[in-house]
Amino acid sequence: MVSATAVAPLKWISPDRDERLSSMTVELSPNTKVILDESEMPTQWYNLNADFPEPCAPHLNPATQEPVTEADLQPLFSAELCRQELTKDRYVEIPEPIRRLYTQWRPSPLYRARRLEETLGTSARIYYKYEGVSPVGSHKTNTALPQAYYNKIEGIEHLTTETGAGQWGAALSYAGAMFDIDVQVWQVRTSYESKPYRRMLMDLYGGRCYSSPTVDTKAGRAMNKKFPGTTGSLGMAISEAVEVALGDDKTHYTLGSVLNHVMLHQTIIGEETLLQLKKFGEEQADYVFGCAGGGSNLAGLSFPFIREIIAGNCTTKVVAVEPASCPSMTEGEFRYDFGDVAHTTPLMKMYTMGADFVPDPIHAGGLRYHGMAPMVSHAYHLGLMDAMALPQETTFKAGRLLARTEGIVPAPESTHALAGALLEARKHQGTPGSGPSIVIGLSGHGLLDMPSYAQVGMLESF
Amino acid sequence: MVSATAVAPLKWISPDRDERLSSMTVELSPNTKVILDESEMPTQWYNLNADFPEPCAPHLNPATQEPVTEADLQPLFSAELCRQELTKDRYVEIPEPIRRLYTQWRPSPLYRARRLEETLGTSARIYYKYEGVSPVGSHKTNTALPQAYYNKIEGIEHLTTETGAGQWGAALSYAGAMFDIDVQVWQVRTSYESKPYRRMLMDLYGGRCYSSPTVDTKAGRAMNKKFPGTTGSLGMAISEAVEVALGDDKTHYTLGSVLNHVMLHQTIIGEETLLQLKKFGEEQADYVFGCAGGGSNLAGLSFPFIREIIAGNCTTKVVAVEPASCPSMTEGEFRYDFGDVAHTTPLMKMYTMGADFVPDPIHAGGLRYHGMAPMVSHAYHLGLMDAMALPQETTFKAGRLLARTEGIVPAPESTHALAGALLEARKHQGTPGSGPSIVIGLSGHGLLDMPSYAQVGMLESF
Repeated sequence: MVSATAVAPLKWISPDRDERLSSMTVELSPNTKVILDESEMPTQWYNLNADFPEPCAPHLNPATQEPVTEADLQPLFSAELCRQELTKDRYVEIPEPIRRLYTQWRPSPLYRARRLEETLGTSARIYYKYEGVSPVGSHKTNTALPQAYYNKIEGIEHLTTETGAGQWGAALSYAGAMFDIDVQVWQVRTSYESKPYRRMLMDLYGGRCYSSPTVDTKAGRAMNKKFPGTTGSLGMAISEAVEVALGDDKTHYTLGSVLNHVMLHQTIIGEETLLQLKKFGEEQADYVFGCAGGGSNLAGLSFPFIREIIAGNCTTKVVAVEPASCPSMTEGEFRYDFGDVAHTTPLMKMYTMGADFVPDPIHAGGLRYHGMAPMVSHAYHLGLMDAMALPQETTFKAGRLLARTEGIVPAPESTHALAGALLEARKHQGTPGSGPSIVIGLSGHGLLDMPSYAQVGMLESF
Repeated sequence: MVSATAVAPLKWISPDRDERLSSMTVELSPNTKVILDESEMPTQWYNLNADFPEPCAPHLNPATQEPVTEADLQPLFSAELCRQELTKDRYVEIPEPIRRLYTQWRPSPLYRARRLEETLGTSARIYYKYEGVSPVGSHKTNTALPQAYYNKIEGIEHLTTETGAGQWGAALSYAGAMFDIDVQVWQVRTSYESKPYRRMLMDLYGGRCYSSPTVDTKAGRAMNKKFPGTTGSLGMAISEAVEVALGDDKTHYTLGSVLNHVMLHQTIIGEETLLQLKKFGEEQADYVFGCAGGGSNLAGLSFPFIREIIAGNCTTKVVAVEPASCPSMTEGEFRYDFGDVAHTTPLMKMYTMGADFVPDPIHAGGLRYHGMAPMVSHAYHLGLMDAMALPQETTFKAGRLLARTEGIVPAPESTHALAGALLEARKHQGTPGSGPSIVIGLSGHGLLDMPSYAQVGMLESF
């Protein structure tokens, strides 16, 4: 452990900062990071649907307009995932084979961003929960593994899915390799073309990746006709993957975000973070910032905090940061909508830009979704979280600053949470470490998004 | 901690394996990995030059043929690095600012590769020490930080260096950002062109990267003339970086491998591994496999083990695995040679293919060096380690197998250590876990080498 009393001024800081730091009394907790032991890893996922002050509106069967049942969902999903989608149980046990695989990278580290704080000159204590340590470099593996596992033990042989930047497609391909189950991925065309490394990664794990919209599905052909030359969207890719899954009874569809069971699996992030903050000596997180596309990273980090807010144990302010080009929470409507362009999914009550909305091809491909997870939407509607939208020019600047201070290159998606947090941190001046505690959900690394940084990220500093 | 008694047979294994596993008595140590606490991180680097049974031959000043002095080296290197290059001190204290930065990713994890063992059907217990968790994804940051630090506090403003695949150039650029020191990198042309993501990463950290040989240096122009259309080599890139460093007294040269002080800084890898193996319950490592290009990852992992071998505390067999296209240890001569093509470096006694040797442009760009670190060469000459050479077709197959079993995509360089170890593991059949312990140095991840996997790595399984 690096001793607090021995902390020397850092040589890389500009002279005026150096002076300030040299004279300051160092009272910071000494560790750079807290990594829990494998024995401290949570053994259950947490379900916020057990604790909402008002229940979340149910998904509706579009044919009957009645709440969907497990049976309605089972043509698409494994029985256990259907049960988890609708359950009100507060906790769901994580199966042993999943826990074993989670320990490949979990518990993931929570970092104290001291160099970032010093560079900003903020009094805030900034933490980031880093999911980039997973085999594919993002939090998506947290739900990819259980989805592959439950399907495998129920006898399913093929999984289909969609992916934006490729984080989810890579994660599911990895999970497919772990459980020997075939994976097919429809990737949004703009990302398929601009981010070839992630599709090569899917190949390496044995997954098959297609540029969506294809001409191989009915939905793909219809969309190519309706939007000639389209760069694709998550909504389109979902339509293709769902169509293929519905056509074969040994094939199921999987979704990397939006649905309740995905939020559930991601809560291991927030459960670990609560424990890690305690080990850092924090009484609570004053702020939690998460990036919001479909909502799974934000939900995973924040839902355990929201449980504590509802219970009256803390006053944490949770903030969703979405891209200005796809501002479902800040500018969308809260209503029932389809999850895909072809209107094949159940109706879900969510903040939405409309299922036909095609966002600009920004670099954070993982945030290009027209809607927002129903559980996240509900939390926002109840006032349990705030939301803001930022342009990618701002978020990439924040990403570059993190790289140059903490060394870590965040995924374009993650830079949204980061930028939101840094804007907040800047408001807090004064004695270093004396301000609020801010937790950032860093959903993944951006090493496979280097062309995006090369194009947008070399702007002047944040 | 995942309980040993609760371990269920894995569903991904072929039926005959499943049966064997279901009936086996699980006696394996339960953890997937051992990550030490920050407080357990070594505070000193280890210097094998203090313990060699016969002293390592000194570097020679080519002008005088006399052993080089610190003064001879100081036009190129920081004074402290010159001292470390020639010291016989057994241990060198790691400065506090370096230790603070190391904790960003250190201690790095040691994994038990259970899924890999099960797939191979070996009785060996396979461990891998994974340096891919560093900010740039390789072990190179271990020496990049001290090299940037010592130069910075001695008033140097610019650092020059060469890089192959870009792991070292990215690491030095990262270190430059940490200590606010300018970094210029000459990258071997074949890698510059085929691996653009790492040069974008250097850019992001603020480093400047050139395709070597350039036309901007005397050495570069000479080499372009001598070898028209050359794909470059580490030896050529070194000549360019050295030339620029010698031309300015605020500029120093840095080297990412080969030299004694680089070996020194990397020993934190092996020191951690010894402690981690003990926590896994191992009495010793029976085998240690490292990849060998310039030798730094191999040295970093193995030198603390060799200390224990010399002291009679263990009987570990250390094996260097080099590429068949650049087999300096297995086919080179042990003699004095220059470190670069232009013959500007000191003479070093090492296994060498000759300073003018230009290896084929294999994907493991980091292993394309004509010589081998003098300390590694000396250890090999004394019989303290073995060596073998493997073709990249074999090593990439091993890399793909690791990805599909453990999830981690190893760097092309690291696949050499891996493949050597797997060939050994295959010799050991019998009750799972009852065979020898094998430690693999996994020097980095290969996420930025995906095109290499796409070209070579999709061969049938290992």
